[in-house]
Amino acid sequence: MKFFTTVHDVASPQQLLQEAIELKKDPFGFSELGKNKVLGLLFMNPSLRTRLSMQKAAMNLGMQVIVMNINQDSWTLEFNDGAVMNSTRQEHVKDAAAVMGLYCDIIGVRCFPSLTNREEDYSEKILLQFMKYCKKPFISLESATLHPLQSLADAITIKEFQKQKIPKVVLTWAPHIKPLPQAVANSFAEWMRFSEVDLVITHPEGYELQEDFTKGATICYHQTEALLDADFVYVKNWSSYNEYGLMPKVEEDWLLSEQKMKLTNNAHLMHCLPVRRNVEVPDELLDGPNSLILQQAENRIYSAQVVLKKMLETNYNKLQNVVEKNVLMEE
Amino acid sequence: MKFFTTVHDVASPQQLLQEAIELKKDPFGFSELGKNKVLGLLFMNPSLRTRLSMQKAAMNLGMQVIVMNINQDSWTLEFNDGAVMNSTRQEHVKDAAAVMGLYCDIIGVRCFPSLTNREEDYSEKILLQFMKYCKKPFISLESATLHPLQSLADAITIKEFQKQKIPKVVLTWAPHIKPLPQAVANSFAEWMRFSEVDLVITHPEGYELQEDFTKGATICYHQTEALLDADFVYVKNWSSYNEYGLMPKVEEDWLLSEQKMKLTNNAHLMHCLPVRRNVEVPDELLDGPNSLILQQAENRIYSAQVVLKKMLETNYNKLQNVVEKNVLMEE
Amino acid sequence: MKFFTTVHDVASPQQLLQEAIELKKDPFGFSELGKNKVLGLLFMNPSLRTRLSMQKAAMNLGMQVIVMNINQDSWTLEFNDGAVMNSTRQEHVKDAAAVMGLYCDIIGVRCFPSLTNREEDYSEKILLQFMKYCKKPFISLESATLHPLQSLADAITIKEFQKQKIPKVVLTWAPHIKPLPQAVANSFAEWMRFSEVDLVITHPEGYELQEDFTKGATICYHQTEALLDADFVYVKNWSSYNEYGLMPKVEEDWLLSEQKMKLTNNAHLMHCLPVRRNVEVPDELLDGPNSLILQQAENRIYSAQVVLKKMLETNYNKLQNVVEKNVLMEE
Repeated sequence: MKFFTTVHDVASPQQLLQEAIELKKDPFGFSELGKNKVLGLLFMNPSLRTRLSMQKAAMNLGMQVIVMNINQDSWTLEFNDGAVMNSTRQEHVKDAAAVMGLYCDIIGVRCFPSLTNREEDYSEKILLQFMKYCKKPFISLESATLHPLQSLADAITIKEFQKQKIPKVVLTWAPHIKPLPQAVANSFAEWMRFSEVDLVITHPEGYELQEDFTKGATICYHQTEALLDADFVYVKNWSSYNEYGLMPKVEEDWLLSEQKMKLTNNAHLMHCLPVRRNVEVPDELLDGPNSLILQQAENRIYSAQVVLKKMLETNYNKLQNVVEKNVLMEE
Repeated sequence: MKFFTTVHDVASPQQLLQEAIELKKDPFGFSELGKNKVLGLLFMNPSLRTRLSMQKAAMNLGMQVIVMNINQDSWTLEFNDGAVMNSTRQEHVKDAAAVMGLYCDIIGVRCFPSLTNREEDYSEKILLQFMKYCKKPFISLESATLHPLQSLADAITIKEFQKQKIPKVVLTWAPHIKPLPQAVANSFAEWMRFSEVDLVITHPEGYELQEDFTKGATICYHQTEALLDADFVYVKNWSSYNEYGLMPKVEEDWLLSEQKMKLTNNAHLMHCLPVRRNVEVPDELLDGPNSLILQQAENRIYSAQVVLKKMLETNYNKLQNVVEKNVLMEE
Repeated sequence: MKFFTTVHDVASPQQLLQEAIELKKDPFGFSELGKNKVLGLLFMNPSLRTRLSMQKAAMNLGMQVIVMNINQDSWTLEFNDGAVMNSTRQEHVKDAAAVMGLYCDIIGVRCFPSLTNREEDYSEKILLQFMKYCKKPFISLESATLHPLQSLADAITIKEFQKQKIPKVVLTWAPHIKPLPQAVANSFAEWMRFSEVDLVITHPEGYELQEDFTKGATICYHQTEALLDADFVYVKNWSSYNEYGLMPKVEEDWLLSEQKMKLTNNAHLMHCLPVRRNVEVPDELLDGPNSLILQQAENRIYSAQVVLKKMLETNYNKLQNVVEKNVLMEE
């Protein structure tokens, strides 16, 4: 595996899932694989789970990790090709990414969207520039439009807890006090398409996600209707894609409740965290017996680790080939 | 050992002290103990000694370390149970601590007091929330009211330099330009109660510490009287506990001097650092032959390391028991 | 090697260069050398290349690394001896450096100049205070006046790409939008004196560097004249040394171009990065076939690694001597 930025970078999502579940049983089983390999993590935005789970995953594989906060530890970056850099931006991504690529064996970058320029955000310009110039295996630690490590962890969690052959999974919009990216929702939708689930996405009018990500899912504007017989309820806020980055007024009550959860098939509750308690989801659901929020967070280790493992094996195998070839040539 | 937040968490402070001194002779003797174990350090406030000595101690034991600055690397935290999180705080400690607990084997947290709300500070609400929710062996890296790693290092230093069977140890208040926590003074007082020393605490009126911490010590309002025949003089500023967080006016001269030190039994000078030179203590004492400030700082490694070692051994032994039990069952 | 702050700290710069080139062929060949050794890196200013390449170099040698950002992770520092610390600075370098020295085996510090007080900057007061008080092998990660790790990497790069016995190397001033330190230029000049090159420094009037650093080089006020038959062109902006930290007005066009490069002997283009693209150097040169900017950046690993290796070997050999001596005594 060379890139991990979307489900489409994965040859077989189902096989990757299975491999992650195997890895979870024996996390230190491949601790030689990362010997002398450096993972470089670049954060342009805050992070707790991603920061810690990536480090933990890399350590499990025997890798070294370098963490850098852009704009705080380092220089501010320019992303426009051909820019005359006579303003506040001190280094071009072209140079910064290329240099990181020289020092690290695998690179991960977190870069949130602006939420002001849809075209630019959805072009994934920043992520693609890093990928292009670093010339190393590359992992998205959440980009403008997608959060694949989270979605893989979510898919693992559903796999672990599903009782039905084809569970009904409901992704429901939730209230929030400020505009959030669509990345988690987009990403979850595209990963679910590669799982054997029945996905329903429910949200108020005006909060439609981009169809590239949601195709194949049922869209429903009535939360209670959507929740009916659900096996998993994934709660997440996002801002509008159409009125980009805005929060069109919502009249109905979209806050989930114990009452509403009674409509489901005793559904598991999911959220990617951080969660605004009692704004997005009430305490009683987050702390209740059906909550999987910590299981999802724990699976972030194995979603990260399986991706790193696949990338290391790609190099490793190449090395093995070279070694074997040399042995053959010597014979 | 499961927790290290106060002297009361330690079964035998004297034995811990002895073990730290042994460890100092062979710091790399247990470098297999921390294999595949991750120490997570969370700083809500600045740190030099604690940050570096914990990392050094963990590395000596073969552990991996993840350091995170809250509010800078990560999200801002909410500490109130049941809070409706519709303001600036993005993640509840309940979730952040629980997630850290999933990724790390031992967790350390630094959280200074507000110095504005005594009841809240002295309830150690923030520390206790982390401890409660992370569900892992937990180390205070200085809390609102105590700094046990510092006190253990101080006790080691006194042990190493004492010539008398029961030395006279004087903790003296010193001037400062801004209000500081009582944590170092509280903590030193409670640890000295478990050492064989004669502890005298001297400070201006209005600077009384909470009696839970100082009980057993002699309180003296006259610095020169207190210094008489002292073997160790520990200098530290703290703000008022009674007029909480304030600095009641002090008329007398509380700045230590070579002249005043002549009253002592050629006493060793101690300070936990950072020190405001020539405000809290004059250069000539800090840099003089009787100063132990660097010895105290060096012993921070071994106070941290012995605590980590005890925590790792608890897990280790449990593992050993399981292994032995399995062996027995197989026979 | 005990210090690495200038070319004068190196017994034989040519030999060090050769050793770095050897190391590059087998970067993991000495991974036992750094076992149980801690490198402490202190940044008072932003850094990408230095931060990452030092970590990579240390990891290649099996060392552990602790990185700290002063004023952000830790306390603000006082640098004046005898200061009455009643202002905003919380810890004296005397104490902070001494403590770092207790926790780390090798220490690196980055401290940029103020560009307002030439005497203070050129006295290297901050660097020297750290060196003096930490009492450990010490590496400059770029000081007020010099950047030796960069210059060593530059010298390695020239060695690797030179075709002539004595290449003509031109250091040319370039435009910039704000005043920069003279450190890279000073340092490059002093290292080139120990390489077998013909060094020409070209800059507008008013931008003369301090002669201690440039002695032996030809100074030329006409860029096009200087470029004639050059084999390497090193581009760098610096602010005035005489009108200290200012940017005296420059009438001529000092921006390099493909046209100007035609005057050279198909010269290689060098820059230490970060570079303000199209302000200091145009894209077409930076991205052109003669550009060595990434090779320079890559060689930062080996310049750092060879310095760390020499420092570790100094300790290592001492240890070996002790061991051998004990063996002899036992016989």
